[in-house]
Amino acid sequence: MQSSPIRKLVPFADEAKRNGVKVYHLNIGQPDIPTPQVGLDALKTIGRKTLEYSPSQGFSSLRAGLSRYYGKFGISVSPEEIMVTTGGSEAILMSFLALFDPGDELIVTEPSYANYISFAAACGIRVIGVRTSIEEGFRLPSVEAIEERITSRTRAILLCNPNNPTGYLYTRDELLRLRDIVLKHGLYLISDEVYREFVYSDEPFLSALALEGVEDNVVLVDSVSKRYSECGIRIGALVTRNRKVLEAVMKIAQARLSPPLLGQIVAECSLDAPKEYLEGVFEEYRDRRDFLIGALNRIPGVYTPMPEGAFYTMVRLPVDDAEKFCKWCLTDFKLVSEKYPKGETVMMAPGAGFYADPEPGRQQVRMAYVLCEEDLERAVYVLSKALAAYNGL
Amino acid sequence: MQSSPIRKLVPFADEAKRNGVKVYHLNIGQPDIPTPQVGLDALKTIGRKTLEYSPSQGFSSLRAGLSRYYGKFGISVSPEEIMVTTGGSEAILMSFLALFDPGDELIVTEPSYANYISFAAACGIRVIGVRTSIEEGFRLPSVEAIEERITSRTRAILLCNPNNPTGYLYTRDELLRLRDIVLKHGLYLISDEVYREFVYSDEPFLSALALEGVEDNVVLVDSVSKRYSECGIRIGALVTRNRKVLEAVMKIAQARLSPPLLGQIVAECSLDAPKEYLEGVFEEYRDRRDFLIGALNRIPGVYTPMPEGAFYTMVRLPVDDAEKFCKWCLTDFKLVSEKYPKGETVMMAPGAGFYADPEPGRQQVRMAYVLCEEDLERAVYVLSKALAAYNGL
Repeated sequence: MQSSPIRKLVPFADEAKRNGVKVYHLNIGQPDIPTPQVGLDALKTIGRKTLEYSPSQGFSSLRAGLSRYYGKFGISVSPEEIMVTTGGSEAILMSFLALFDPGDELIVTEPSYANYISFAAACGIRVIGVRTSIEEGFRLPSVEAIEERITSRTRAILLCNPNNPTGYLYTRDELLRLRDIVLKHGLYLISDEVYREFVYSDEPFLSALALEGVEDNVVLVDSVSKRYSECGIRIGALVTRNRKVLEAVMKIAQARLSPPLLGQIVAECSLDAPKEYLEGVFEEYRDRRDFLIGALNRIPGVYTPMPEGAFYTMVRLPVDDAEKFCKWCLTDFKLVSEKYPKGETVMMAPGAGFYADPEPGRQQVRMAYVLCEEDLERAVYVLSKALAAYNGL
Repeated sequence: MQSSPIRKLVPFADEAKRNGVKVYHLNIGQPDIPTPQVGLDALKTIGRKTLEYSPSQGFSSLRAGLSRYYGKFGISVSPEEIMVTTGGSEAILMSFLALFDPGDELIVTEPSYANYISFAAACGIRVIGVRTSIEEGFRLPSVEAIEERITSRTRAILLCNPNNPTGYLYTRDELLRLRDIVLKHGLYLISDEVYREFVYSDEPFLSALALEGVEDNVVLVDSVSKRYSECGIRIGALVTRNRKVLEAVMKIAQARLSPPLLGQIVAECSLDAPKEYLEGVFEEYRDRRDFLIGALNRIPGVYTPMPEGAFYTMVRLPVDDAEKFCKWCLTDFKLVSEKYPKGETVMMAPGAGFYADPEPGRQQVRMAYVLCEEDLERAVYVLSKALAAYNGL
């Protein structure tokens, strides 16, 4: 994978902002939604005099709360099968360190969340991409296409469901196919389900941990970051029924001593947020998605499939090189108006960063719909003007 | 290294407590000292509505505060040379992931902090111990003894100064010798200085980052956990002047998104704790040290050198096997008295867990003096009774 083209753009965005240009961030997954009030209130009432270590596996009360929460999604796990981690990120890193030896191979669908690749590189793991395409809506490739990438060094398949960056929601049928593959080849299935609450189809969400027959194969990656809009508290979880994996993960968890104390307090209280909170967040994202996808597809030459989950979408733009265009938006373009005399522009994540071979992402960008609808509407308008100017129309 | 004999004892300690036995924890480094009030107060006044991601390298205001703090110890580093981490633990893990390829070797003084070994194992790094001995007060071995462990795969020497588990404070002369070795062999010097505030000698503390000529070799590991008694907030730092190392560390930092937001807020305010706070904490630990070392050495057959730093000491006990004795204290011994009709006992960390070859630690235990003096006094008394009973005296 390319080394993070989005990060190369940050200095240009900073420069534009210093020049007074209003930049709409379609590039990041930092939600603007408020954290549940019960979570925020928890901070005010901490009576501890010493902010001491918590248990390495996390507070048992938080693990019990998560166990009940998972139950609502048909995932039956005991608190002992849950390891509280420092964000979903640490759950990914711990699963990599626990399951792989250096030189082992990990299969991921591509386009793919760039940080999987960074962690794999740091751990000496070879990442083998299985390509999905925007034309086919990013659906899972055939069993044959996956099996032909499996070698004697393959240890696991990593699935992000619903998917970041595509927003794709894997079907029951696709999950059953994956189940058969991991069983047949004796692989782990690492399932990153941090966007579980954001599923816009009528089908109920199906967790990999709810599949029968792969109880020992599945390692679930979870996080409270997105669902409670509390990315900064760094609380996630690694969940598995495999005792040996749990033991290996526990050794790493003990070496890093404990997950964040304060974050655990906020996360545990957030689990008690009234159901109206999550319903409201869900509706907000669904409305933003409906607006954004419709508006993007109305721009001539632009195409994006309708994502069924998460809050991202991959968009094909009518440009020669999306990375070049994204940079140009920050350095050479601004839409000047009476309200914005210093101009407005958009920042997007170039698609190349999500592929091993940058070619299929050459015309693509990833957008996150974490801005309020008013800003989204304006951002799409600014984008349409930028595209027209870039192409000399 | 042995797989953590202290952890094998936890179920026995839990069982003793369930039976009403009072267990004095001499085994852990969980301070009982209060966190600075300014740090605790910071939580009450957080006005944010969304607990969002912070920058991957940590808030610039926190890094600026740390930069000023290091200046007081003769460590001149800019905020850009400081990476805020999730505890000192993450600084260790990041330095391992950034500096080593699997199969590379790390030299550490032994006895050694067990979690170095756990992280190294997870990263596929070979740990090469350089033995220090209780008889010589755990001073640094000769240049020859260190150099003979260096191979073509050696990448770094890791020093914990002041040392956990020995409490040893390395002298200027020893640090200069290490400087010459890393320069001569082109190695990194990873210096874990989280106990910097707890130095009981008259010599000022000398940081590896204050050594001349090894600016590009030194990677400093730091943490606010111990000095502000806030282990649970998980805030540490990796500090280096080496740009390439910083870049490699930044990639890992970006992959894990950000360090804990709430912990950073507490840590930044803790830097403003009145100087009486750290003076008071220092005096408390010094008094505990003076008491503990004197009292231990008055027990027949017990020996421990006077530690010049941190809040640990390695103790040689007159027993056949310290691991067996530590377990026996929890399972077979209790001191019954009128005040404690269900008995009292002590929990200590068996020395074998701090050595690759358990033999030199066979008669040793590590004790932390993080209990208040009243409890320490009682714990030593209970230990003396346990030793007498164990040896049939």
